[in-house]
Amino acid sequence: MASLSRKLSSFSLLDGSRALTFSVSILLASLLISGLEVGSGEDGGDELFPAILRDEAVSRINQLGKISDADGYLERTFLSPGSIRATDLIMSWMQDAGLKTWVDQMGNLHGRTDTVNATAETLLIGSHLDTVVDAGKYDGSLGIICAISALKVLRIKGKLEKLYRPVEVIAFSDEEGVRFQSTFLGSAAIAGILPPTALQISDKSGITVQDVLRENSFEATDESLVWVKYNPKSVWGYVEVHIEQGPVLETLGYPLGVVKGIAGQTRLKVEVSGAQGHAGTVPMLMRQDSMAAAAELIVTLETLCKYPDKLFAYDEQCGFFEKESLAGLVCTVGEISCWPSASNVIPGQVNFTVDIRAIDDEARKSVVSEFSNQVYRKCEQRMVNCTIKHKHDAEAAHCDSELTLQLKHATSSALRKMPSDIHGDVPILMSGAGHDAMAMSHLTKVGMLFVRCRGGISHSPEESVLDDDVWAAGLALLQFLDQHVNQ
Amino acid sequence: MASLSRKLSSFSLLDGSRALTFSVSILLASLLISGLEVGSGEDGGDELFPAILRDEAVSRINQLGKISDADGYLERTFLSPGSIRATDLIMSWMQDAGLKTWVDQMGNLHGRTDTVNATAETLLIGSHLDTVVDAGKYDGSLGIICAISALKVLRIKGKLEKLYRPVEVIAFSDEEGVRFQSTFLGSAAIAGILPPTALQISDKSGITVQDVLRENSFEATDESLVWVKYNPKSVWGYVEVHIEQGPVLETLGYPLGVVKGIAGQTRLKVEVSGAQGHAGTVPMLMRQDSMAAAAELIVTLETLCKYPDKLFAYDEQCGFFEKESLAGLVCTVGEISCWPSASNVIPGQVNFTVDIRAIDDEARKSVVSEFSNQVYRKCEQRMVNCTIKHKHDAEAAHCDSELTLQLKHATSSALRKMPSDIHGDVPILMSGAGHDAMAMSHLTKVGMLFVRCRGGISHSPEESVLDDDVWAAGLALLQFLDQHVNQ
Repeated sequence: MASLSRKLSSFSLLDGSRALTFSVSILLASLLISGLEVGSGEDGGDELFPAILRDEAVSRINQLGKISDADGYLERTFLSPGSIRATDLIMSWMQDAGLKTWVDQMGNLHGRTDTVNATAETLLIGSHLDTVVDAGKYDGSLGIICAISALKVLRIKGKLEKLYRPVEVIAFSDEEGVRFQSTFLGSAAIAGILPPTALQISDKSGITVQDVLRENSFEATDESLVWVKYNPKSVWGYVEVHIEQGPVLETLGYPLGVVKGIAGQTRLKVEVSGAQGHAGTVPMLMRQDSMAAAAELIVTLETLCKYPDKLFAYDEQCGFFEKESLAGLVCTVGEISCWPSASNVIPGQVNFTVDIRAIDDEARKSVVSEFSNQVYRKCEQRMVNCTIKHKHDAEAAHCDSELTLQLKHATSSALRKMPSDIHGDVPILMSGAGHDAMAMSHLTKVGMLFVRCRGGISHSPEESVLDDDVWAAGLALLQFLDQHVNQ
Repeated sequence: MASLSRKLSSFSLLDGSRALTFSVSILLASLLISGLEVGSGEDGGDELFPAILRDEAVSRINQLGKISDADGYLERTFLSPGSIRATDLIMSWMQDAGLKTWVDQMGNLHGRTDTVNATAETLLIGSHLDTVVDAGKYDGSLGIICAISALKVLRIKGKLEKLYRPVEVIAFSDEEGVRFQSTFLGSAAIAGILPPTALQISDKSGITVQDVLRENSFEATDESLVWVKYNPKSVWGYVEVHIEQGPVLETLGYPLGVVKGIAGQTRLKVEVSGAQGHAGTVPMLMRQDSMAAAAELIVTLETLCKYPDKLFAYDEQCGFFEKESLAGLVCTVGEISCWPSASNVIPGQVNFTVDIRAIDDEARKSVVSEFSNQVYRKCEQRMVNCTIKHKHDAEAAHCDSELTLQLKHATSSALRKMPSDIHGDVPILMSGAGHDAMAMSHLTKVGMLFVRCRGGISHSPEESVLDDDVWAAGLALLQFLDQHVNQ
């Protein structure tokens, strides 16, 4: 515990006592060490392929991290010019790994092995090629590149032909949902859960998903969406490698972890309409100030999610939530805008986004409901009009126990081969971040591998993964793939 | 008092008891009925000139209100294409009134009488031609157009030549400060209080005041700024007609009021730097969330200005402020921005503007100081970095008592001639809004006339002034000018 506290204090965020509380909470709540035994696994060979799995993979991550729509920072949104360039580059890497490539009608890039047993259920491995604004270079890219690297090793070892099922790498066109405020445009289409109405979602300038698809010569019809969808019977399972984007693996000093499930998520847009007026002449008590109202609502949201026990404890009818179900509850306001946006005008309109996540779906829904009630109550008190729009709802997704066990065996086997001395069980984690695996869980069984990142930082240019951890992830995936090779 | 309460309740903002409190506070604090007697005044003639002072003036206000840089709403900023078109149009109206016109090196438009006594001290009359974003059509334009209309009547009556001092109408190029976040670029240059450093102020895209001036073929040097400055000895005084932008005249049922002084103003920019991170993975207790911090600071500011007694009462050293000195205290956050502005990213940076105004300069400074202390304290608690930048400070400006008396006489005389039946003394008000008269008070004695507006609403397309009130304002100015004519 002392070493944990020391590690935590290196974040410079917490004093000693808080760090201790947090470290206990991680162990008790966020980190769910499973009772699974580490199996011996089947070793896929004696070589560690650092030139491909580490050096080339890291070099490719750096190359992809430079393909951006913005000057000076990383940004690639759904089918943006940067995304198109990234697609071309990844396609060349897929071909280099011996894969047959194509782009589907939602802009997802596919690279598939040409195996003997071509009609067998396919193993899908993927992650996303889009990014947030001012992104890190590992989020999404790491998973795509590790998968391609592992398959390249199989090609070099002459094992591609020995795979007894097709393996397909998918680089999804949209996971972050930055441009259209709707996540998983790419993976949801493949999983068959993207409604045709998604084509009509518009960005801030009024351009729709359909417009963007057609600009890029896609059909963008209800029918073309159906073409993208995979038949569940044709798929064996889905595996994704992703940076953890949280601090647990670093805290535990472990490079890789296996994911047990992904937190559910609700995205809201809150619109506050007040009375626009002159900043100098409307007395404070006569104002219907949408900015002050929005600020109060943002503070309310933070308090609700920071101290949920306090708020729920007062509602006898709701009953008490188990502390564990509220663990991992996080709430974020990431965007805000006001109108008319001049320093000497009381804003008439303020809009902001809300992102609420929790491992327990019922707990999350209760937080959304409690927040909504407080919004309407406070807006009434302030005589401003508030509307809450539900932009996105995703239930928590649970990973397949068999796949999780296989990934754990593969990880354990890979790490034993690595030069570094790593002890203890492979950690089993919950994910607070949403991933394409959430959408893909509607199509097939899913499994995920997390890779340690520095300081738990992601969605930031500060995002960082050790080169050796990229290597470890590629090697673990290679071990996992080896289970699908006729020995 | 019953009728006051009824009028106030029509705003639908206050319940009965609050309305009563507010109406009393208006009478006791904001509205300072002076002890001046209404003089008989010198009537300038028997005609009321509704075709020029009402119909043409209203038509011109409507024309000018359609000249905008934006589609669908009114916006004209410093030397923008819309402002240039507005300058040309106003210039033609000045020439129609018999004035000699020119544009100075800060883009201010001047129209001057060509009188016999051309070297006598000049009477300046002006207001601004720029607007806020999504503005009303009366703010600024009303004062320019009323002045031109009154001089046009003098021309028609053959009285322009009889003026015993030059009269100059000035349409100032920048009062609102929307683009460069610095008010009074135009009038401060004429008053000689604009520092040469103002040329280097940049807008959001990095373009400076100097760049914009040069794009429009102005010299934009330290020396050219000096050319704009007027010699105080050459000026007799400055008069401005402006919409009230507050609810007092409407509450009193009076079309015009004379201004005793203008509240002082401080504009700040608060910058909050936290730790950017993934919305799903950083635990609430580990966050350095700049959005939540900014929201708390905005609520803090509102509370401080809504209930200043409570906050100051706790500080024995500061002593208690007289209630009257805190009357009219208003605080506004009109702009906010965040980075990177994505719904699933904890913002690393949030910036917002603060506008604080009060009639009493010491009270205002104490509020600024108390707010700053609270900002630094709260930011430290949240482990985010906060900086407060002072963008603008203006002391309260007091109108000249002699000019105020003359304006009061002229107003009283004009209203007696009007068809409508108006009783009682001309109200003497304080202004919560800043005006060019604040800057001009550094050059010469100033006086201001306020015109009633509907609901006290300004800085909004809802801004509205009765046609007859436009007429009354023109007639009052005509009466005032008549005092400078050899009879």
